[in-house]
Amino acid sequence: MSDSIKLLRSPALPAGFRAAGMACGIKAGGNLDLGLLVSDFPAVCWATFTTNRIKASPVRLSMRHLKGGELRAVIVNSGNANACNGRQGDRDARLMVKAVASASGLKERQVFVCSTGIIGVPLPVEKIQVSAPAVVKLLRPSGLRDFSRAILTSDKRNKVVSAKIKIGGKEVTITGVAKGAGMIAPNMATMLAFITTDAAVSSAEIKAATHSAVRESFNCISIDGDMSTNDTVLVMANGAAGNPSIRPGSADSRLFRKALAKVMLELAWKLVRDGEGVTKFVTIEVKGAASHDDARKVAESVANSSLVKCSWNGSDPNWGRVIDAVGYSGARVQESKVDIFFGGLAGAKGGQAARTPITRLKAVVAKKEFTVTINLNMGRGNHRVFTSDLSEGYVAYNRLEYALKLQGR
Amino acid sequence: MSDSIKLLRSPALPAGFRAAGMACGIKAGGNLDLGLLVSDFPAVCWATFTTNRIKASPVRLSMRHLKGGELRAVIVNSGNANACNGRQGDRDARLMVKAVASASGLKERQVFVCSTGIIGVPLPVEKIQVSAPAVVKLLRPSGLRDFSRAILTSDKRNKVVSAKIKIGGKEVTITGVAKGAGMIAPNMATMLAFITTDAAVSSAEIKAATHSAVRESFNCISIDGDMSTNDTVLVMANGAAGNPSIRPGSADSRLFRKALAKVMLELAWKLVRDGEGVTKFVTIEVKGAASHDDARKVAESVANSSLVKCSWNGSDPNWGRVIDAVGYSGARVQESKVDIFFGGLAGAKGGQAARTPITRLKAVVAKKEFTVTINLNMGRGNHRVFTSDLSEGYVAYNRLEYALKLQGR
Repeated sequence: MSDSIKLLRSPALPAGFRAAGMACGIKAGGNLDLGLLVSDFPAVCWATFTTNRIKASPVRLSMRHLKGGELRAVIVNSGNANACNGRQGDRDARLMVKAVASASGLKERQVFVCSTGIIGVPLPVEKIQVSAPAVVKLLRPSGLRDFSRAILTSDKRNKVVSAKIKIGGKEVTITGVAKGAGMIAPNMATMLAFITTDAAVSSAEIKAATHSAVRESFNCISIDGDMSTNDTVLVMANGAAGNPSIRPGSADSRLFRKALAKVMLELAWKLVRDGEGVTKFVTIEVKGAASHDDARKVAESVANSSLVKCSWNGSDPNWGRVIDAVGYSGARVQESKVDIFFGGLAGAKGGQAARTPITRLKAVVAKKEFTVTINLNMGRGNHRVFTSDLSEGYVAYNRLEYALKLQGR
Repeated sequence: MSDSIKLLRSPALPAGFRAAGMACGIKAGGNLDLGLLVSDFPAVCWATFTTNRIKASPVRLSMRHLKGGELRAVIVNSGNANACNGRQGDRDARLMVKAVASASGLKERQVFVCSTGIIGVPLPVEKIQVSAPAVVKLLRPSGLRDFSRAILTSDKRNKVVSAKIKIGGKEVTITGVAKGAGMIAPNMATMLAFITTDAAVSSAEIKAATHSAVRESFNCISIDGDMSTNDTVLVMANGAAGNPSIRPGSADSRLFRKALAKVMLELAWKLVRDGEGVTKFVTIEVKGAASHDDARKVAESVANSSLVKCSWNGSDPNWGRVIDAVGYSGARVQESKVDIFFGGLAGAKGGQAARTPITRLKAVVAKKEFTVTINLNMGRGNHRVFTSDLSEGYVAYNRLEYALKLQGR
């Protein structure tokens, strides 16, 4: 549905945003670990946060600052999640904000803060305090790349996406940066995404657009089901493009939401492809469910089945494991109606083996990217989830302790 | 709670039961793949079945026969689950029952039928029809071992447990046989358990005792969350011991349930220890939850977290991953109240790192068996789950196709 939005080959920050990244010494080896992103103008913002009941200190502080409605800057450190550090964690998150506010002339409530990395180890906040003036000085309109690298943990690649659209005759840019690692919903790695746009957007529109875009993108990648204490998606719109403010229900709103969803979806795909030990990118497409909720249950059940994921790793078009996960998903299903396709070729029809030669099915699952379509033939509910295989590499990586995992990142 | 029940060193069938196992040619290499278990007397029976909405043909047929209330025999084949085979599957399950009934002089409705193995491949029922007279002839009071081997798929070891108790001055034996494989809740491997006893038990008691024992045993092992289309636990009580019939609410009932639960729990532990690629046996003990349901959610969330399981595989006492899984379990939790212990040593107290030296925590998680205790300090709900680590061996095994997995089993 968002296929008509063009993405830029060279992503760049929208007008009126500057960014920076530097090494402040939290990660070993001089790797970038402190990022700052600011809007030069007041920005309309909205964010979604982890639904984990254990929330990191920076998440709780940022929730309050978001409500204040005056956000201008985001400070992010990697290498330490500042989660499960009790009152000291709360104090350190506040100190981090204070240092950036005072170095940049902003108020504390204008600063959003994120941390990502190991859980339960006190944040070496003094390193951030010492580096705050330096990272402010490094701010540049061209600083996106450094920022995108400074927020990574075990990611192999930085992740940046830009799109341009026209709103009211003005060119508008939407640029997003994300970090994932782990199998996407990692507990010590955290999914973070920051989306900036120079569009002028009403506050009602930014909330609705953020929620709908997250629902269609980051909430459609489900890999090992682990959800971090720090997951955050922030959208900032500063109006520097000079377009008439986008309001809900307008044609401009439809275009804006399409572009925002496209940027988030591209970032979400990058997260899956860069997941730990991932060798396959799999789209699970569920159709014909009795409801959308049933379709979602089926897609997530299949996406989170270790047995299904292992079969993909072995290039095995094992529809028996798929239909088993369909059966325990909790969705209403009738065995004799279930069709399962691999790359459009029927593996099962009506709950039984189809006649497609196994060699043809194997050729699909042997690919690096393929789609598994499940038609329940019960109704009109549909849902897609983007996921990966489960490899020996994932286990080999995640059995390592955190310090070993981050070496050289 | 069931620690006072003594288990027999040499498990044997209770009085009035006979069993047999043979190779009928479903598995390659002459491995045992057809098992028969009969009671020489009318038996009071109850069973619990998979809650998967996709149920194998033999499961649906056995559900009907159970309701008939006249079960005397169980026929089981391994190597083929007879699941997702449509009407042919239903017909084949019926033919399997018919063959055994006619060879043994029983009525069809007296025969319970189970299949375990690959999904979606038609059952070679003619092999079972041909072998039915032979397996009936092989029936022996000493046939338990062959039966226990004939029901295995990718299990490495057969699993048999016997307990003896005294009821009304009579010695009563309870003997169980199980097969697991996969990571316990496997989709193509199936969890099957058959419990026989010579106790005289009322039909109200057998139902209640079966449900409570399953709840405390097989329902407390949760490994990869995959639930088979064929999972079945059957309890048969034939009264050959001559005790006064056990009724709900009596002292005899309490003892009987304790022993039945103990036999099932021992079998459940064997399933976990023999799981594919398992290198660690981990007890997750949740205390202080606001309700029992909350305690169960927390225990299962932790037991099913791939990241937590990988950390155990690497002997890493990673309480950050544990508290993260606690947070997304859906249970009511307050971060500042959560305590996490490894083998009784505090990893986290009040949601923060405890002072226990990491080397001591590592020594616990380096063991082959250990307990992780999570105290939410919210109320009185508690629950235990028995689980395993996630190893490269699990992935290496489950990426193989089914035929390759069964070679030499």
